[in-house]
Amino acid sequence: MKAIRSSLLCLVAVLLGALPVRAEAPVSVEKWGVFELTLKGPDEGNPFVDVRLSAVFTNGATTLEVPGFYDGDGVYKVRFMPGAVGEWRYETKSNRWPLTGKIGSFTATPPAKGNHGPVRVANTFHFAYADGTPFKQIGTTIYNWTDTPEEVQEQTLRTLAAAPFNKARMLLTPQPNPFQGKFAPPRWPFAGTPPHGWDYTRFNPEYFRHYEQRLAQLRDLGIEADVILFNPYGKWGFETMDAASNERFVRYVVARFSAYRNLWWSLANEYDFLRTKTEPEWDRLGALVQACDPYGHLRSIHNGTLLYDNNKPWVTHASIQNGAAVEEPGRAEMYRGVWRKPVVYDEVKYEGQSPYRWGQLSGEEMVHRFWCGTVAGTYVGHGDYFLVNEDTWTSFGGTLKGQSAPRLAFLRRVLEDGPPQGIDPIDKWQDPNTAGVPATYYLTYFGRAQPTEWEFKLFRNGVVDGQRYRVEVIDTWAMTITPVAGEFVTKKLDAYHFVDAQGRKVPLPGKPGMAVRVRRIGADGQPVKLELLLEGS
Amino acid sequence: MKAIRSSLLCLVAVLLGALPVRAEAPVSVEKWGVFELTLKGPDEGNPFVDVRLSAVFTNGATTLEVPGFYDGDGVYKVRFMPGAVGEWRYETKSNRWPLTGKIGSFTATPPAKGNHGPVRVANTFHFAYADGTPFKQIGTTIYNWTDTPEEVQEQTLRTLAAAPFNKARMLLTPQPNPFQGKFAPPRWPFAGTPPHGWDYTRFNPEYFRHYEQRLAQLRDLGIEADVILFNPYGKWGFETMDAASNERFVRYVVARFSAYRNLWWSLANEYDFLRTKTEPEWDRLGALVQACDPYGHLRSIHNGTLLYDNNKPWVTHASIQNGAAVEEPGRAEMYRGVWRKPVVYDEVKYEGQSPYRWGQLSGEEMVHRFWCGTVAGTYVGHGDYFLVNEDTWTSFGGTLKGQSAPRLAFLRRVLEDGPPQGIDPIDKWQDPNTAGVPATYYLTYFGRAQPTEWEFKLFRNGVVDGQRYRVEVIDTWAMTITPVAGEFVTKKLDAYHFVDAQGRKVPLPGKPGMAVRVRRIGADGQPVKLELLLEGS
Repeated sequence: MKAIRSSLLCLVAVLLGALPVRAEAPVSVEKWGVFELTLKGPDEGNPFVDVRLSAVFTNGATTLEVPGFYDGDGVYKVRFMPGAVGEWRYETKSNRWPLTGKIGSFTATPPAKGNHGPVRVANTFHFAYADGTPFKQIGTTIYNWTDTPEEVQEQTLRTLAAAPFNKARMLLTPQPNPFQGKFAPPRWPFAGTPPHGWDYTRFNPEYFRHYEQRLAQLRDLGIEADVILFNPYGKWGFETMDAASNERFVRYVVARFSAYRNLWWSLANEYDFLRTKTEPEWDRLGALVQACDPYGHLRSIHNGTLLYDNNKPWVTHASIQNGAAVEEPGRAEMYRGVWRKPVVYDEVKYEGQSPYRWGQLSGEEMVHRFWCGTVAGTYVGHGDYFLVNEDTWTSFGGTLKGQSAPRLAFLRRVLEDGPPQGIDPIDKWQDPNTAGVPATYYLTYFGRAQPTEWEFKLFRNGVVDGQRYRVEVIDTWAMTITPVAGEFVTKKLDAYHFVDAQGRKVPLPGKPGMAVRVRRIGADGQPVKLELLLEGS
Repeated sequence: MKAIRSSLLCLVAVLLGALPVRAEAPVSVEKWGVFELTLKGPDEGNPFVDVRLSAVFTNGATTLEVPGFYDGDGVYKVRFMPGAVGEWRYETKSNRWPLTGKIGSFTATPPAKGNHGPVRVANTFHFAYADGTPFKQIGTTIYNWTDTPEEVQEQTLRTLAAAPFNKARMLLTPQPNPFQGKFAPPRWPFAGTPPHGWDYTRFNPEYFRHYEQRLAQLRDLGIEADVILFNPYGKWGFETMDAASNERFVRYVVARFSAYRNLWWSLANEYDFLRTKTEPEWDRLGALVQACDPYGHLRSIHNGTLLYDNNKPWVTHASIQNGAAVEEPGRAEMYRGVWRKPVVYDEVKYEGQSPYRWGQLSGEEMVHRFWCGTVAGTYVGHGDYFLVNEDTWTSFGGTLKGQSAPRLAFLRRVLEDGPPQGIDPIDKWQDPNTAGVPATYYLTYFGRAQPTEWEFKLFRNGVVDGQRYRVEVIDTWAMTITPVAGEFVTKKLDAYHFVDAQGRKVPLPGKPGMAVRVRRIGADGQPVKLELLLEGS
């Protein structure tokens, strides 16, 4: 009897598998693009909780099981980001027959220009795209830009297209804002009506489709989307969901978004201000994101006043709020040494004219903080908090009002012209103002000091007598790079340092925000080429 | 047959238990003193590895099993530190009959004057003795003082008796030093002969008895002994023992030393320079110390350039080498927030005239670093590195040559006159120079700045209009405390601060190293009393 029942089930499965599959899928997609399989399935009951769907993708060498999701109206989808060119085959799994055993294949073509894959940690403290291209993070913050009138969102995209930023922090669930009630349609992530009439067991696919459209547009602008899953601001009820609803929410979002190569996961903004969750809950939710995401996108959690234990294995890099930490480079280095992971100072106060002290930096101070973070071997995030019609860039997008953005574009060019593997403090507890690669590249930032000269002087690591260097003077605000005439040739000074054999000094203009760049030159008179040292790529 | 054998064993046990016990033990010992039980036992074979001994102590409310140890010549000891007054009973356990089932009792009397018990973590970031007395750490470093000629050790004790230090870092195993070969007897922790003829399965009890004599003398001077179990300097072979020898060493030392109330465990000095051990090995050794020590003495590990993960549960407080971290208070606070444990900057470079840059601080700079750490809510350690006949205080004890010690005595008095629970940053990322207790006590240190006045201005926490304060000006180098005439009365300035209702400012002498102390006064015209908030005491 048992054997017969088993055979019957097999027969049913074979018959169903042989039925015309109402599936749609492309025949090809570029490497690190989004392959999307669309299936029709049951729409009775609550498909969000009743139906399980996944697909196993393989190219022979790599096999990944990827979660699917319900997109409403009886439509199910599985998205997949192929990490290698060539043929990929797949087969679906489900607890419902119409979604089970669907097989197919597609071809992953070489990535188009500008597609470098997802960003990974590289060289312990730095980042690189999957294809090895360095990623020098110059972030900005536009928390609620997807929850504004359509024309504001389009304006935000135009602003970003002309701005230096390659990463944007953005909330997934909305917070109260001045546009709500003034534009239609209002979108909410869950079925139900505001403020608290939610059914947390049913998602609103339209909300997520709109958000995904924005993710794709950021991707096409070369911008990483640092998507913040939980925030303490909304008070719509999303911040007090029970553990099962939190888990369902994470699984749904990860299933929908993971195939976007420009995605970073930020578990929360100001996690410690979200007082309805405990630290063990954050630990579990972070580990859940890690377990569900097949591609290992970058993962972090952003603090209010209480630092998270970024040594936890699920955290790929520290995402820090602490403006004081980048007031001078000696501070910025300290968290780096603690966690031995990349440190992104995602919130260092905002450029603006807010009455709040977290939103009243001058443009000069915003740029200063980026440079302090840079020569500490860390990365910094930008905010623009000038109130215009109850609106600021950092809250709702639109346009930039501050003066820092062009200077951050300048900094980005300096970084992208620098060592691909990133720059690290050369003599971390003695000379906090200098980062680089020993005996090859040095960037010294003088901060608020106003020196009138700089003695050519290098820390001993890698340096021997007779090495030749060129020096340039950088004005971080005026955005100029001025070569110093001639060469500098090293000569040992003492147990720690080398100076120029002729004792040469570099004149400086006696104003704040200056830097010097020192590059070793080879026999051909050109700067020495740097090897790219990347991990996990 | 089984039952008979069992009964016979019981009979033998009873008979042995009834034999005259060659045990010695005092009839009373003060609370937190050292009760020592001495037993004669087997001396054949290798008692260090063949014989297990422990004793269970109980006063009815608390029961502790305490490891014993072999002290050579057939003598075994069990030491116990009673944590409560009254009668304690004990019974020994062993794998040898002569050491098994010895029972007895003694009375723990009230602690003598100056005996406050072991030091514990209190109020998250601070320390207190077990009786609740605050412990304001002013540490020094005398690595090898127990391994010098007798007269130098006696001189060291005389120097300490007149010095401000209440904690001393000291190595347990020796490093090469200029006295070796010039004085007798040389002592080594293991049986054998230098440099490498050691039997790691046999300890040299005389070495440990001598060390214990010094522990007791420090205790009687009110000085905590921060005993460093492993170090990278010796190259005698102790740094390359196998895992079993490391564990045997830790167990032996913990069994011998734990009953000394002034003991702190420092697992290693510059652990990352001891390249023969991996981080997982340090984790295991740290957890082993925690597991073996019945009293939970403070435990830490001191770094070279690579910070240990002080979030590990076995670590009670961070023991940090990083001079740069206490060059200004904004840096010093950062590690505090990371680990949420007390931070002791145990090595911040030394006052001295060394050719090495870690040993050439001026006295002013040494004192400055203590004050920076203080107003960051952390603690600092001292070193004195003036070479005199190949000898320095920090390496070998003897006498102090630097100028900082009297100023550290002055700082200790300021701290001991301050809030018993310790002082914490008041507005940590905005005003790094001020620590205290909101609306009660403020200590602002101006560091290298040379202000000529200070506007009376307090952060909002706890402050309302009309509170009355007194202000004193502190010269940290001249060691003076000068009251400012009159009272200051709070008046709200803006969303963040209160100032004096009359807009009063405090004149300052325009020199570095100045501080102000602000204390709230009550209706009686006296400073407001502070509640003691202690954990785990």
